Amino acid sequence: MKPSIPKGTRDFSPAEMLKRNFIFDTIRAVYQRYGYEQIETPAMENLSTLEGKYGEEGDKLLFRILNSGDPFEKYRQAHLEIKNSDVTEKGLRYDLTVPFARYVVMHQNEISFPFKRYQIQPVWRADRPQKGRYREFYQCDADVIGSTSLLNELELIRIIEDVFDTLKIDVLIKLNNRKILSGIAEVIGEADKIIDITVAIDKLDKIGLEKVNKELKSKGLSETAVQKLQPIILLKGSNENKLESLKNVLKDSAIGKKGIEEIETIFNLLQSLKRTARNLELDITLARGLNYYTGAIIEVKPNDERSSFTSSICGGGRYDDLTGIFGLPNVSGVGISFGADRIYDVLEEVQGFPDFSGVSTKILFVNFGEEEAKYCLQLVERIREDGINAELFPDAAKMKKQMGYADAKKIPFVALIGTEEMKNGEITVKNMSTGEQSKVTMEILLHMIK
Amino acid sequence: MKPSIPKGTRDFSPAEMLKRNFIFDTIRAVYQRYGYEQIETPAMENLSTLEGKYGEEGDKLLFRILNSGDPFEKYRQAHLEIKNSDVTEKGLRYDLTVPFARYVVMHQNEISFPFKRYQIQPVWRADRPQKGRYREFYQCDADVIGSTSLLNELELIRIIEDVFDTLKIDVLIKLNNRKILSGIAEVIGEADKIIDITVAIDKLDKIGLEKVNKELKSKGLSETAVQKLQPIILLKGSNENKLESLKNVLKDSAIGKKGIEEIETIFNLLQSLKRTARNLELDITLARGLNYYTGAIIEVKPNDERSSFTSSICGGGRYDDLTGIFGLPNVSGVGISFGADRIYDVLEEVQGFPDFSGVSTKILFVNFGEEEAKYCLQLVERIREDGINAELFPDAAKMKKQMGYADAKKIPFVALIGTEEMKNGEITVKNMSTGEQSKVTMEILLHMIK
Repeated sequence: MKPSIPKGTRDFSPAEMLKRNFIFDTIRAVYQRYGYEQIETPAMENLSTLEGKYGEEGDKLLFRILNSGDPFEKYRQAHLEIKNSDVTEKGLRYDLTVPFARYVVMHQNEISFPFKRYQIQPVWRADRPQKGRYREFYQCDADVIGSTSLLNELELIRIIEDVFDTLKIDVLIKLNNRKILSGIAEVIGEADKIIDITVAIDKLDKIGLEKVNKELKSKGLSETAVQKLQPIILLKGSNENKLESLKNVLKDSAIGKKGIEEIETIFNLLQSLKRTARNLELDITLARGLNYYTGAIIEVKPNDERSSFTSSICGGGRYDDLTGIFGLPNVSGVGISFGADRIYDVLEEVQGFPDFSGVSTKILFVNFGEEEAKYCLQLVERIREDGINAELFPDAAKMKKQMGYADAKKIPFVALIGTEEMKNGEITVKNMSTGEQSKVTMEILLHMIK
Repeated sequence: MKPSIPKGTRDFSPAEMLKRNFIFDTIRAVYQRYGYEQIETPAMENLSTLEGKYGEEGDKLLFRILNSGDPFEKYRQAHLEIKNSDVTEKGLRYDLTVPFARYVVMHQNEISFPFKRYQIQPVWRADRPQKGRYREFYQCDADVIGSTSLLNELELIRIIEDVFDTLKIDVLIKLNNRKILSGIAEVIGEADKIIDITVAIDKLDKIGLEKVNKELKSKGLSETAVQKLQPIILLKGSNENKLESLKNVLKDSAIGKKGIEEIETIFNLLQSLKRTARNLELDITLARGLNYYTGAIIEVKPNDERSSFTSSICGGGRYDDLTGIFGLPNVSGVGISFGADRIYDVLEEVQGFPDFSGVSTKILFVNFGEEEAKYCLQLVERIREDGINAELFPDAAKMKKQMGYADAKKIPFVALIGTEEMKNGEITVKNMSTGEQSKVTMEILLHMIK
């Protein structure tokens, strides 16, 4: 009868919640500072909304909800071949992007475009659980839709900088543009293989050049095309140098030149803000697997000596037709998503969480018995009136237990009120970090703990 | 191909999120002020955790999740009788109490008791959707477990008062004690019918005395017992009067007297805090259907002339053995839960939501073109540096569209920067509520919008 939870899911204890809220609150505050508004969508979506949106693999990873009642009734006697669609028609949200697209289509008449929305909610995937990969996890998305301006891309990069500045994590922001990738495919004479090319070169970091070339050939790229691709894949140097080389490579590709122009516009805007973009890198191998990006592609990795993390902690890009699948074509959008779980792990590693002592409860009144407790109640009330989190231990338990409780909850001050204090109207207060003890008035106490 | 969402579920738009967050933030802040800490549990629980915990009806209303892969494979050919347990072993959280009990048992060695936890998360029930009843809705629970002190009951009542004071909703807090109900069943000679009695008299408000008596008789209560019950059910007058009458009625019931004593202790403590309890009513017909309460029973209803609401917006009570089902016996707890959706509806009715104008974005910079936008970017950056939510419209759209956007988002200030302003380093700012327009410096602007 030992209880357990489904694999890949987690409980979050108070200590973990403080850390998680620190991350969520930071992201939320920055999103709001840039004018993004919050929406929430239901955990359950119709399967027709979800299926076919995440590829074949995604369909397998959807959590499906059994219809209510007894959907198996007619199958119970086993005379019929079972049909999934008869027993399940709802599924759990797999990401925040598809529900957002569905939301925009359903609410298009209420929305004032461009729509800058953020959404911080859990998503569910029936993936094999492993370290850092869960079946329930939070996504923190911001998207602007209904505007093609590159100011949006700029803004999202600034949001990324602000979030990681606030969290005090040094990061490297990698930037690419799908149009550059298209241009490259074009100039090497393999325009129709753009997807195979991007999928392959996206793996450069992980599998190395040799295997990338092997994959390219196996996908049917000519020897000449693969050879032409080499200097482009291996582009090195500053962003300016890369752009100069690319301009030369892509001089005959209209779409390639457009991609370069977009990247340059973003770099120039950042420069005009005196952001030297030292943490921003043009990386033309970046494709982020996802095939729906049509313009900017963004990925963020920790760039911190103290962190061993190499996986991305934020990513996004521009897509030209997200809502088309739901009947609203030609709505361009650009968005990013922060990986809260990975950011949590990075912050643990670099010891980047602030000290949460006193964030929950500021002061605990020890309970010495009925009379004392009744007296303390009024003091606690007074303290709470000032908006300060305060507690009276509910039972007249042993001193050791009550002090242990204060320790466990990281409560920085403990008040001890006995007969003498009650007589003199004083409060004996103990500073739990220094061990110092003093007798004070309520006024001074409020001053101390504020 | 028109998208839709499952019945009984909802999207929440930015305007709704502001209102919902106002409610959640209020409840959260009050919980924290009293030393409650937050936990979160996964949306999915093992069916073994959920099943049998909410009665037969509850089992029917659980949303079950289909096992991953193809759980129907072996049934596809229809030679076997289908077994539910073969195809589903997880379900969606039905309330926050059972997952909390499960949490406490699994984490008992990390918890410093008494454990004061709060939890604000959605729950799912396959109930028939109707006005005010959804298949996905939020619960806002606070419980203390591991303490039998009545100071906890007092504290929860104070929390209820603080939450509704902050929300500016006048409420009536009804209080009862299961021990009083037990005492009554005892003195009328029907101690073993305590459940039938409480279930019946709980309905007094809804179905009236005659039908209550009919139900009592149908459950096998003797005519004498029903007659003896009449003056008790119809107890009127002040709390003090009711308590005096009850003391007389229950003078021969040890458990009944204990119940009276508990209620009196809570009343006395409230009085010692100068809370006259004018909004607190002893109601011995209150049983809250739920049969697991063993001490205090609490229910809150709006008591506001402007509101037509008669259903409860908060409720709770003490239970003596919540975690026993998961193998940890004799842990007493007491808790409450706020009904956020109903509170939302009451606040709408009494027009109790604050003005959210400027809560999202404080100022919008109109975009007159590339050069102007580039110039404005720096001003927006400066404003955001001060932590103020600010936006630059991303496209050089028509003035009407940009102003409409500010209106729709309830942005209180709009900045207009043209060639002249750029030359003079001034900002033309329009107050959207007064229509007033003035030329100011950044310093003055910051002062205006802060």
